[in-house]
Amino acid sequence: MPPTSEHVRPSPPPEEPAARALYDAMTGAAGPAATGWTGPPRLPEPPRPGEKVLILGAGVAGLTAAYELSRIGYDCTVLEATGRVGGRSRTVRKGDELYEIDDRTGAPVRTHTCRFDDGLHADLGPGRIPYHHRRVLSYCREFGVPLEPYVMETTANLVRPPHLSHPLPNRRVANDTRGHLAARLAETLTADDAFTREVRDLLRVFGALDDNGKYSVAQRSGHLHDPAAGEPFPVPVPPLTFEELVGSGFWKTRFYQPLDHPWQPSMFQPVGGMDRIVEALARQARVAGADLVLGAEVTDIAITAGTDPPRARVTYRKGGRTLTAGARHCVSSIPVPVLRSIGRAGFSTAFESALRVVEFEKTCKVGWQAERRFWEDDGTRIYGGISWTSHAITQLWYPSTGYFSGRGTLTGAYNFAEVAERFGALPTGERLAVARAGAAELHPEFADETLVPQDKGITIAWHKVPYQLGGWPEWNPDREDHRTAYHRLLQPEGGDVFHVTGDQISPLPGWQEGAMMSAQYVTQQILGVMPRTVREVVTVPDSVALTQGLI
Amino acid sequence: MPPTSEHVRPSPPPEEPAARALYDAMTGAAGPAATGWTGPPRLPEPPRPGEKVLILGAGVAGLTAAYELSRIGYDCTVLEATGRVGGRSRTVRKGDELYEIDDRTGAPVRTHTCRFDDGLHADLGPGRIPYHHRRVLSYCREFGVPLEPYVMETTANLVRPPHLSHPLPNRRVANDTRGHLAARLAETLTADDAFTREVRDLLRVFGALDDNGKYSVAQRSGHLHDPAAGEPFPVPVPPLTFEELVGSGFWKTRFYQPLDHPWQPSMFQPVGGMDRIVEALARQARVAGADLVLGAEVTDIAITAGTDPPRARVTYRKGGRTLTAGARHCVSSIPVPVLRSIGRAGFSTAFESALRVVEFEKTCKVGWQAERRFWEDDGTRIYGGISWTSHAITQLWYPSTGYFSGRGTLTGAYNFAEVAERFGALPTGERLAVARAGAAELHPEFADETLVPQDKGITIAWHKVPYQLGGWPEWNPDREDHRTAYHRLLQPEGGDVFHVTGDQISPLPGWQEGAMMSAQYVTQQILGVMPRTVREVVTVPDSVALTQGLI
Repeated sequence: MPPTSEHVRPSPPPEEPAARALYDAMTGAAGPAATGWTGPPRLPEPPRPGEKVLILGAGVAGLTAAYELSRIGYDCTVLEATGRVGGRSRTVRKGDELYEIDDRTGAPVRTHTCRFDDGLHADLGPGRIPYHHRRVLSYCREFGVPLEPYVMETTANLVRPPHLSHPLPNRRVANDTRGHLAARLAETLTADDAFTREVRDLLRVFGALDDNGKYSVAQRSGHLHDPAAGEPFPVPVPPLTFEELVGSGFWKTRFYQPLDHPWQPSMFQPVGGMDRIVEALARQARVAGADLVLGAEVTDIAITAGTDPPRARVTYRKGGRTLTAGARHCVSSIPVPVLRSIGRAGFSTAFESALRVVEFEKTCKVGWQAERRFWEDDGTRIYGGISWTSHAITQLWYPSTGYFSGRGTLTGAYNFAEVAERFGALPTGERLAVARAGAAELHPEFADETLVPQDKGITIAWHKVPYQLGGWPEWNPDREDHRTAYHRLLQPEGGDVFHVTGDQISPLPGWQEGAMMSAQYVTQQILGVMPRTVREVVTVPDSVALTQGLI
Repeated sequence: MPPTSEHVRPSPPPEEPAARALYDAMTGAAGPAATGWTGPPRLPEPPRPGEKVLILGAGVAGLTAAYELSRIGYDCTVLEATGRVGGRSRTVRKGDELYEIDDRTGAPVRTHTCRFDDGLHADLGPGRIPYHHRRVLSYCREFGVPLEPYVMETTANLVRPPHLSHPLPNRRVANDTRGHLAARLAETLTADDAFTREVRDLLRVFGALDDNGKYSVAQRSGHLHDPAAGEPFPVPVPPLTFEELVGSGFWKTRFYQPLDHPWQPSMFQPVGGMDRIVEALARQARVAGADLVLGAEVTDIAITAGTDPPRARVTYRKGGRTLTAGARHCVSSIPVPVLRSIGRAGFSTAFESALRVVEFEKTCKVGWQAERRFWEDDGTRIYGGISWTSHAITQLWYPSTGYFSGRGTLTGAYNFAEVAERFGALPTGERLAVARAGAAELHPEFADETLVPQDKGITIAWHKVPYQLGGWPEWNPDREDHRTAYHRLLQPEGGDVFHVTGDQISPLPGWQEGAMMSAQYVTQQILGVMPRTVREVVTVPDSVALTQGLI
């Protein structure tokens, strides 16, 4: 379907190039602003309007490709194996079903039917949007998806370090650490020149040191008693000692993840659930003419070199029947570990080798419904953010929405790698029991099943989810074979026939922005406005740093 | 009016004492939770239901006292000098008028009529609620005032330090400082025992150091280019040198204020403006039977010792007439500098001395309407938070609401003391010109009057506002005369006749929580459930620390 006027993207907000250039000069390349992406891609008409494109997978990347290609005039069909759009962007609500592959039989089995109350949801996939993920933010603005702040950290959040039997509030750990480090550095400053005096003054403010450069009062860590009129002014909590802090190993819980670039404030979330984004993408792709076929499981992909130009032929099962579809281009967002087990013909040996290299990360989440927001009570006063623990649940997310209301949902676990493998190996009921115990180490209320009902808990082990088999590719920039494979997968097969897309082949694995970035990239390769061959030097993303932070 | 069932406060949410105690034990007195305020005061019936109370001033404290005293059965009349409730809780919208005292004539003159577009507002008084200000949060919950997150800091906010001609983003300054301080401390660690190795590991994560303990790559400070598929992975911005950071004097701009206890996340704001709170208080006080009299300017206050029990008699002007009112108790939230110039009879010499001690802080704010949210553009990507500058405007607040929408309002200045005195001495047009220039040093777009219209700008110098004469009392805990005065003002005059209330005589000057705390305290003194005499040792709050942070 050719684009009509209603499919034309609205103009971006006006820009003042002069002011912008001045600003850039003033800030000295202050950050991501200066160069790079300058707005949604402004794409030309395709060389042959109406040319067929087959898109495999209706996740964030597949839907973005379907939208972008359809709106400029390609004839897109999306084949999606499951009965829903979104892929790993997975919001669960009452009645939603989850499936995992049974370890023994290898067959998918239903693990949960969500029993949240009406109006509640949990994001089991992506759960937040960094402020510098401009593609995600841009699509939300374009499609009218309302956003609200996602709170990554509050000083009321808790940390339960490996070598401590009880949790501590973030404010005590963060501020006392800053204070002790500043005081220790101040001790080493013996000079009295102007520069050193300035450093001392910086340390005084940085660490809340007293006038002697000591960390004697934990001014920023809260009070033993709340202030009250007519009472002595509240007594600060005593500082934790440096030995207590270091001995606790608190930083090994990913406590400082909120400092890393992907998780710095501001972050956002769609009002009502992350799947508002994929729903909007699917709706807009359909409006632009794309055909979305659900329940279509791809079994074979062939690049037919005998035709001119070459084409792709895809075989899929739908409703018990085997069907085929052909197209000039095929864009596959199928995760590499899944693609490996799909029949392929006409692919290069280099591509086949590349497919074998990267594994997907093991990762699990847990969703809880709580009948009362006990974490907002005076005992803890937590409104959003994350508590960190050395328990297998790794982290506990509080809702960044519905503050002060009655019920709420929490992310009761989000873990990785070996921890996720062991956790995901448990039957779902046992996973919930373990997750409850881990959360109860932070909030005793979790032990109360009337407050946090067992039958409303829900878990997912992404590495066991059919058609996904993991959270994101484990790219490792230190591995030569990863560099070779990543480079190969950035380039289409069969000339310009078969393109791999998704966060899996983007600089931002595990993030929706990466999926959109890759889909826009592939769209531009198909159009010929982006080279189809990639220079040799391509840096492989550090998946661990980008999904778990500096650990 | 006696209380009826509809005035009975709903029960607080259920508490699990056992779980709470366990939690407290686990967290080791983790903060404000453990003791102190345990919920809204549960007040008994007054000794003489229907007994008259005169409340002077309909700000946060006066309205809280009116609500609390009325709902338990006192007969309350509130005399408010201005034509509106709220006092320093001041939200301006289209058509609202501001007045200041003319320096030459000493008479109030209208300085502004607000010309914001419909639906926009600015808070010229309190603008945020800390998560530990439980009285404010509790009243909001009780009265159904919806709250949303107030964002104090994002890493995209700017700082323009005293010794630097251009602004820098928060993320570069904050993360590069942390990195350099960590690296310098790591350099001093020569031992190789287990503890020192742990400290090195802490420093590595704290400062994002490389494996050699150096701060070589500014991993957390953003990227020169945004990531793009098929491109080399984004290059981090180069670190600022330690000499650049220290030389800039950035911390002298109050850059670290968000670390101090009052401004730590979470913070909240009422949806639609801070005056939603005083409106709700006024409505509920009226429902509980209080009589709110606007435009009633108090001229004389007498404590009549000749009666038994003693009473208060208040003379006020309203609509050109002079009226008097008598009551068993009088609760005055009139700011001390204003109270000084009101006629008084029957007050003790100790009280008279106390009134002369404390001055109110000079402080100004500016409100701007911007026709487009240019700060959210790719150049800066600021969504809420505060930019800090050594310019007289001191700080620039971005709206914590309406993200991604069209227009928005900003707080274009919030300054203190000598800076505010000089700024407030300017005619309002010049104030706006200065504020525009200061903001344009952060965002060149401010220079564009089509983007930030001059006639929609608004300013206030609180120390020149009639019936206010300042922002909050400048209590100084180091001053003996302040200790004496503060102690005196905590106790009623004439036995139990005349009570001073407000944030001015609370542990939290400058905060609504202090006003509510004081009003609840006075209410309990009147009821006799709180002693009317105060033990000698009362710590005076440090007003500068509580309103401006560690500077």
